[in-house]
Amino acid sequence: MPTTRSTPAAKLPICPDLLLDRDGPVLRLTLNRPDVRNAMTGEMVRQLTEVVAWAEDHPEVGTLVISGAGGTFCAGGDIKGFMASFRAARPEAGQPDPIQADNRRFGHFLTRIEALPQTVVVAVEGAAFGGGLGLACIGDVVIATRDARFALSETGLGIPPAQIAPFVAARIGVSQARRLALTGMRFDGAEAGRIGLVHEVVEDGAALEARVAKLVADIRRCAPGANATTKRLLMAQRTTALPDLLDLSSAEFARCLRGAEGQEGVAAFLEKRQPAWAAGS
Amino acid sequence: MPTTRSTPAAKLPICPDLLLDRDGPVLRLTLNRPDVRNAMTGEMVRQLTEVVAWAEDHPEVGTLVISGAGGTFCAGGDIKGFMASFRAARPEAGQPDPIQADNRRFGHFLTRIEALPQTVVVAVEGAAFGGGLGLACIGDVVIATRDARFALSETGLGIPPAQIAPFVAARIGVSQARRLALTGMRFDGAEAGRIGLVHEVVEDGAALEARVAKLVADIRRCAPGANATTKRLLMAQRTTALPDLLDLSSAEFARCLRGAEGQEGVAAFLEKRQPAWAAGS
Amino acid sequence: MPTTRSTPAAKLPICPDLLLDRDGPVLRLTLNRPDVRNAMTGEMVRQLTEVVAWAEDHPEVGTLVISGAGGTFCAGGDIKGFMASFRAARPEAGQPDPIQADNRRFGHFLTRIEALPQTVVVAVEGAAFGGGLGLACIGDVVIATRDARFALSETGLGIPPAQIAPFVAARIGVSQARRLALTGMRFDGAEAGRIGLVHEVVEDGAALEARVAKLVADIRRCAPGANATTKRLLMAQRTTALPDLLDLSSAEFARCLRGAEGQEGVAAFLEKRQPAWAAGS
Repeated sequence: MPTTRSTPAAKLPICPDLLLDRDGPVLRLTLNRPDVRNAMTGEMVRQLTEVVAWAEDHPEVGTLVISGAGGTFCAGGDIKGFMASFRAARPEAGQPDPIQADNRRFGHFLTRIEALPQTVVVAVEGAAFGGGLGLACIGDVVIATRDARFALSETGLGIPPAQIAPFVAARIGVSQARRLALTGMRFDGAEAGRIGLVHEVVEDGAALEARVAKLVADIRRCAPGANATTKRLLMAQRTTALPDLLDLSSAEFARCLRGAEGQEGVAAFLEKRQPAWAAGS
Repeated sequence: MPTTRSTPAAKLPICPDLLLDRDGPVLRLTLNRPDVRNAMTGEMVRQLTEVVAWAEDHPEVGTLVISGAGGTFCAGGDIKGFMASFRAARPEAGQPDPIQADNRRFGHFLTRIEALPQTVVVAVEGAAFGGGLGLACIGDVVIATRDARFALSETGLGIPPAQIAPFVAARIGVSQARRLALTGMRFDGAEAGRIGLVHEVVEDGAALEARVAKLVADIRRCAPGANATTKRLLMAQRTTALPDLLDLSSAEFARCLRGAEGQEGVAAFLEKRQPAWAAGS
Repeated sequence: MPTTRSTPAAKLPICPDLLLDRDGPVLRLTLNRPDVRNAMTGEMVRQLTEVVAWAEDHPEVGTLVISGAGGTFCAGGDIKGFMASFRAARPEAGQPDPIQADNRRFGHFLTRIEALPQTVVVAVEGAAFGGGLGLACIGDVVIATRDARFALSETGLGIPPAQIAPFVAARIGVSQARRLALTGMRFDGAEAGRIGLVHEVVEDGAALEARVAKLVADIRRCAPGANATTKRLLMAQRTTALPDLLDLSSAEFARCLRGAEGQEGVAAFLEKRQPAWAAGS
């Protein structure tokens, strides 16, 4: 059954720049370099990718909650690392370009974390700039405090928000993404909510925690396998023609209904009890 | 002329689970199983499909208004029919799967009703859950009362909102659809308006009726053939590259301008009178 | 350097129906037929296309601001020219259709102005109907006064909003575009903001000017080449699969970081000074 808790052997990876805290079917991931407002280095992205790999292997963990330590989400890419690379020599003809490869790596990470089978809640307070804003865009449910601060300020440095912009545009549309990326404007959580960059806006950090707790409880009442299937089908919408998507969806529907979750879910409904996956929620 | 009323011979289909009421160019369709909050059985979907076939054959009827009897829109799929099927045996290898086929049928229906030449107004009060929420998503104009209730709660039963989710995502985007489908959250008409699931929010049932009447009058001033063409071109946007769509649109423009509606519409404008299709509106 | 001002030899085209006013990296374009509320004739579209060609050749001009003279944006297509064409004879078989070609020309213009390397600010007050509404939809940042008036009323004349609708749908989605185009409803700036047709709503003409000035200053702090690249990548999102777009974006990132703007932008950041392109802003 997908709801069986993993044995203690399912050890979490060791990630010095992250806090990882698992409670049964819920994993909390906290960006933890508060002295630099959780700016993302290449090393931090490498650790995040390890967590993604672990989560891919543990679909019985149904929920992932992402936030930042020290009252801020993520101030963006690490400028110092960036500084080092911007003076890098141009690669010789036919050789791979390390700047391009470094940049592309962040897009690989965002693509992979967005495709996780878990339902991902992102909680934003403080700053979410550049890459931090991009990371916020991969959540299934994204909440921010009213006074959180957002910006896509890359072009002020003479560079495009290359790996980030596609995820921003997938979330808020190309129209609003053009406005944000071409003006570099700062905006707050209220405006982020108005344009759909975040789904919900709360007053402060305490309200953020309370809302996350409520969402985690809501998600526990959803079967983790059915959620993973639903998420996969919704993401397929971007690349699949409607008739094909409906065909695929009907096959997945039959598979789920005949599977352990479907049998348990309908039985629980008939017996007016909670399904196994929601026990204790 | 598209505005000629059909002869009385254009009989409406006999549909015990629906109320059908035609007034010239306007057809009103009311889901009418109020004792079960208009839950959709396979039989009701069959009747709805008959109405769709009738409407396809009667493009002179320019407007279709869909609502639910008894103060509620539609509580979703019929759980009892569902219960029967979930114990169905797996089909033998190579045989069609009846669960899959049943499920797919609802997507066929939604695809077909969304493509109708009529301008479709959907008026929601009370509940719009699961398949009812999906049905609401096919309207050209969707209005709800502030206290209407919505949910995509399928994954709580261990199954995906398979045929519904693509229509929800087409309406509100993949981002908001992920949030709704993966949390199963209930939300009201005000939130449905905020996220674009409905276009307009009104205070109560009386305001809903008044707004529908105003919209029906607005739509009567639009030429039915031009509206059908415009709707078809807008739907084609999802699958057609922009240059091809603009080419197609210019051909349709010339056809419409030279056609009976275009000639009547421009003449009426010059003569400062109502065009024939709007007479009496 | 992209920030070098053009020599005085970079003469603006002569366009009797437009006001053109260049101030260094900012070009202001004002539709200037206030006696007919800036209705667009074929001749005005021809002049606008000349300005587009000029702008394509002058990427060092980073910002284009579009508005209308006389307190209104644009009342739509010129009905008189329209009237002449609607009585035009059908072309002989195999011959091009002049109505279709005229119509298609407006779509070519919108496609081309939307693809400009400049960051385009559109400021709407008064009316933005039909083609005027379409023109507003190509802006990177679109602002309107609360009492501005919008409508897609073509089907009331018996014709589809053929070249306009795809740009409206790209901006607000097919769902809202269906509602607006199939009812012909008038709506104000507040509603335009609510549905994302405009990005920002201000109280009156004075606030509109003040907001435009602030946006122009914001945009000047963005490198014009990086902005042009970012805009191109964002527009490519509509037609490019995500992995390909991320590959392309990483190549552009490396190119920009190694280019004059990237070197200047990062150096200015390190030296805590304004980059050259923002000097005096």
